[in-house]
Formats: sequence, structure tokens, C-alpha cells
Amino acid sequence: MNFDHLINRQIRLAQRPQGLPGPECWQHTEEAVRAPQEGGVLFQNLCLSLDPAMRGWMNEGKSYIPPVEIGAVMRAGGIGRVIASAHPGFAVGDLVSGGSGVQDYCLVPGDQVKRTGLTKIDPRLGSVTQWLNVLGMPGMTGYFGLMDVGQPKAGETVVVSGAAGAVGQTVGQMAKIKGCRVVGIAGGSAKCEWVVKELGFDACIDYKAGSVREGLKAHCPDGVDIYFDNVGGDILDTVLTRINRKARIIICGAISQYNSTEGIVGPKNYLSLLVNRARMEGIVVFDYAPRYGEAVLEMAGYLKEGRMHSKEDVVRGSVDVFPATLLKLFKGENFGKLVLQLAD
Amino acid sequence: MNFDHLINRQIRLAQRPQGLPGPECWQHTEEAVRAPQEGGVLFQNLCLSLDPAMRGWMNEGKSYIPPVEIGAVMRAGGIGRVIASAHPGFAVGDLVSGGSGVQDYCLVPGDQVKRTGLTKIDPRLGSVTQWLNVLGMPGMTGYFGLMDVGQPKAGETVVVSGAAGAVGQTVGQMAKIKGCRVVGIAGGSAKCEWVVKELGFDACIDYKAGSVREGLKAHCPDGVDIYFDNVGGDILDTVLTRINRKARIIICGAISQYNSTEGIVGPKNYLSLLVNRARMEGIVVFDYAPRYGEAVLEMAGYLKEGRMHSKEDVVRGSVDVFPATLLKLFKGENFGKLVLQLAD
Repeated sequence: MNFDHLINRQIRLAQRPQGLPGPECWQHTEEAVRAPQEGGVLFQNLCLSLDPAMRGWMNEGKSYIPPVEIGAVMRAGGIGRVIASAHPGFAVGDLVSGGSGVQDYCLVPGDQVKRTGLTKIDPRLGSVTQWLNVLGMPGMTGYFGLMDVGQPKAGETVVVSGAAGAVGQTVGQMAKIKGCRVVGIAGGSAKCEWVVKELGFDACIDYKAGSVREGLKAHCPDGVDIYFDNVGGDILDTVLTRINRKARIIICGAISQYNSTEGIVGPKNYLSLLVNRARMEGIVVFDYAPRYGEAVLEMAGYLKEGRMHSKEDVVRGSVDVFPATLLKLFKGENFGKLVLQLAD
Repeated sequence: MNFDHLINRQIRLAQRPQGLPGPECWQHTEEAVRAPQEGGVLFQNLCLSLDPAMRGWMNEGKSYIPPVEIGAVMRAGGIGRVIASAHPGFAVGDLVSGGSGVQDYCLVPGDQVKRTGLTKIDPRLGSVTQWLNVLGMPGMTGYFGLMDVGQPKAGETVVVSGAAGAVGQTVGQMAKIKGCRVVGIAGGSAKCEWVVKELGFDACIDYKAGSVREGLKAHCPDGVDIYFDNVGGDILDTVLTRINRKARIIICGAISQYNSTEGIVGPKNYLSLLVNRARMEGIVVFDYAPRYGEAVLEMAGYLKEGRMHSKEDVVRGSVDVFPATLLKLFKGENFGKLVLQLAD
């Protein structure tokens, strides 16, 4: 096999950002595509997942995974189609989910197939973009964060920020299915209307239009039992004033803080945890990898039955539009899970 | 029975403090002592428990218990001796633990005996001051916070701030008994030496003498699995940078913040909870009231065997010295559990 005729366009990290990652952070490169060696797999990226967590991966220093090195292809999960395989578990034409990177083609050496979590996906369970959303990493994050850390009980009140985002829509819909009252927090009336009318949330607070505090008072008359936090900052502090005894706060992210150049602001109302005997707990989705299968099957069933919906904000383009597209996340401009579609 | 010859000196809350509670916050009053009516108990206070939590009770607003009202006798737990009883469960001469208040005598009406948790104590299990320390509320806080919320496993590293205080000494000693490595944080070399030499902690970091961060690096080479936080502020933030995966942070108090006039500073490193899949959880001791008996018996056994020690900082005086004595807590001047001894 020879793939020399194929050009692999790539986006590499040129420098670490201060605040919002501007064009100076990125380098556009091209290289030839090479055939996989023994045990390896070559796939073409169809869709890339654009996630708030990417901002963290661009920073130096210890985190739950190593930072992207300067000069390396930017890390990104994605869905691809196998175009060459020297691995018995993958055949040309298979759809796969893996560590795509921001590039057209991804060559996974044999010794990296397992480590990078390359897996075949079943297109009968959901579309390619759904496999990056409710059935993908954000969906797994929402599912296990809510179910394992939050442990919702029917009748409890669940609040989720970033409600129209990838994780938020999974959390809210799962909480509804489990019999909870669900109140979202999102930016803009379109998102708020959508999570209520389409996803069946009980209410959604538009943080851009008014007071989150008043919204919580109005829509959570019995207080908050579970708060799934994707945003941090003032919203986390406000929810802390409304939690019930034995409340659970799931710390999934803090998108309001990621681009701060003045350091992260901690939740000044954290002593509400003491008063209410409540807990705040972090979740990293990778810990649940052995159980992804069960969550995918359960939620694919809900999608089929129409009990769950999955909304993606799909931007079509080449990898060159990645830098500008990523910024939509931090400006709250995406509506649904942000996906960069490179090919069909 | 007539007790008109006895004068009950009382300290009442005159106004709510801004920052440290100065003399203007207090009113010294006297009133006659009345005999108990049907079901009631009258006891003389021997010792009062002076606790950081008192500062919170002086503030207005919702907390885990209502604030002390302006004009009311200041709330305090204590140990007393019954001098008159119209309740079948209490006899003259009994030693009792209860909601003494900062006053010489406490009259508990019949309908308040249960609500205020008035209980007989067994002097064979520990001295009167020990009943305010390891066997009292702080001991119960440390015991259940560590055991129930922290769930220590042998070999884990436990860090406790306010290590020489009432809660801290219980936490550290219990953690040692459970087979953990224990590192205290305290202010001053005398306290640090004492928790290591007398209580058997593995190390103690003097936050007044040097860097807590360097101390943690040196003394917690395997990271921190449990942090029992009595202080909040910078020390909490520093420990957050050293926690292990699945660490537990018990939020018991935040004495560094209670007198702040600029509002509470939240832990800016709280996203370490996410990275480390860790949790931060509050504890309020009253929730464990039905289980105090088991903890008292267990720790009284350790005291008897010499496996635990209980150090109290006993100030002798009348209730008039209460305002000044309380300030020792916030200046870190007490060495051991702070007790105001009013009578023998």
C-alpha cells in the first residue's frame, strides 16, 4: 500500500496561550501519509470533537493527562474511517473512535492501538456526530458524573450548567429519565428554550438575561440536591447558596475560568458544604472506560425510543478552521456539541 | 427549694461583631437563680467549651444552627453538676454535659432537656475537661469526620490542620491508631513538638516558621490521601496542590476566615478535585449524636490504655473573662482544647 498521494494537513501547538488561544498558538503543517506497520491502523478523520478540556491540555503542568507538547499535533478525539489496517481487529471501511488529533489522517502504531483507546463504533447505534456527543466522551462524562458521583434519586432537583452543551444535555436528559426535576443554566434564550422544549428540562435559567440567584429561587423551590458544574466562577458560587443538606456537586469543568489571565477564582461560598454536609467531587471520564459500553447501549436505546435527543453544532471545513472554531466554545457561541466535520 | 441566694452571672451577645469580637459585642448581666419546674434540671457550670464555631454562631443568617440572638446568653457547651432536679433521669450531684451557655448556672426546662441534648457523663471514662475535649464535641467531630467522611485506610497519609487543637489532636491520634501516616500543621514549635513527641504524629509543619508547601513535600512523600481542614485559606489551597487521586478533604472549619471583614476567600485550587477525582465534604457533628456513645467508649479505652492523650488549655476564672479568653482561639494562642473553668 502506498499513500504518498495523500497529504495530511495538521494543526500543531506552536506556543502555550495566555488567555484565549489566538492564531499565534498554532502552526499549520503538512506531511505525507504513511502506511501502517505490523499491528497499526491508518484512518481518515471524518469528525473531530472540540471540547472545553482542550484549553487545559494546552497548559503546561501536571493534570489528569500530560499537556500537549509544543510542536505536537493538537490532541483531539474524533471519529474516522479505516483506510488501511495491519491489525486483525480493524478492517478497511470500519468506523472508529480514537485519539484523532487535529489532522486529516491518523496513523496509530501497533503499540498505541490499545493505549489510545482505538475502538470500532457501531453506526446502527447512532450517527457519526452522535458518537462524539451523547454516545461519545461528553456523553460518558455526563452519564458517569451524574450516575456514579451524583447518584440521583427520583424526586431530587438536579441543576446543570452549560445545559445546552454536550455534557449538559446528557446530564439533564439522564436526570429526567431517572425521575428528577431538572433545571438548566445556559446562555441565551434559544438554548434555554431548546433544553426545555426539545429536551424536556423543567426549566432553564438564561444567565445572560438575568439573575441566576433569582432563577434558582423560582425554579428550585425545594433547593438543589445535585449540581453538575461545567462552568465554575460566579455560577458555582451562586448555586452553593441554594444547596440542600447532603447535596452533591460534581466538578466536571470550569469553562468560565480556563482563559483567565488572573488565575482561577475559588468558590468563596464553599463553607456551604460544611453547613449542608454536602460534597464537591471531581470526575475524569477516562476512569470509566471499562464501562463505556453499558452507558452507550443504554443511551442508544433512549435515542432510538426518542426519550433522548442529541444536538451537535457541526462546522464543516478543513483543519485550518480549527483555531477559530475552537473559540466558539469559550464565547458560548456553540449550540450543542461542537464538531468539526472534515469529510463524509 | 429556693436558690434566691445564688446569683447567675451571664455573658450576653450585645451586638454582632465585625471581624474579631471585641468587648463591645458583650453584655455582662446578673439574675437570680430559679428552681426547676416539672421535668426540668438546674445545674452549675463547672467548665465551658470555647470553640471556633462560636464565631459563626455570632453571625446573622442561615447556618447549621440558628444564630445567637442579640440580647441572649451566649451559647456554649459545658460540663456541670446538677444542683436541683425535677426530672427522673437526673439527680443532684450528677455530672452532665449540655448547652450550658456562658453563665454560672443553667436551668433547663422540662421540654428542653431532650432538645438540648442534656446527658449524664461518666467521670470514670475521663476527667471533666476531657469530656469537653476528646470525649466531647470536638472529639466527636474529629472521630466521625475522620472515620465516616474520610474513611482512612492503613498506610494512607492523613494531614490535619489545627493539629494541636481539640479536633486536630483527636483526628491525628485516631488516624495513627488506624495505621495511617499522620502529618499535622500547627503554629509554633511548642505545639509542633508536642503533637510529634506526645501524640505520636509522624511530623508536624509549623506554618508560622516556614513554607507549608515545602513541609508537605518533605513529610508527605507519597502525597496526601486525607486532609482534615480546620483552617481554610492559604493552607487549604496549598494542601490541594498535594492531594492524591481519590483524596478526601473534610471541611470542618475555616478559622483563618471567620474574622475576615473582606469576605471569605475560596480555594482557588479547587480544580485539583477534578484532576484527582477527589472530594471535599462538610461535616456537622450533631448528625452523629445517636452514635456518640460508641465513639466515647472507644476513645475512653484508648485514653485508659495510654494510646491517646487529651490536652486542654484550661483558663480558670469567672464568666467575665470569657470575652478575652475566646480571642485566644483566633490568635492561635491556645495550646490544646480551650476550656474556661468556672468552678470545681
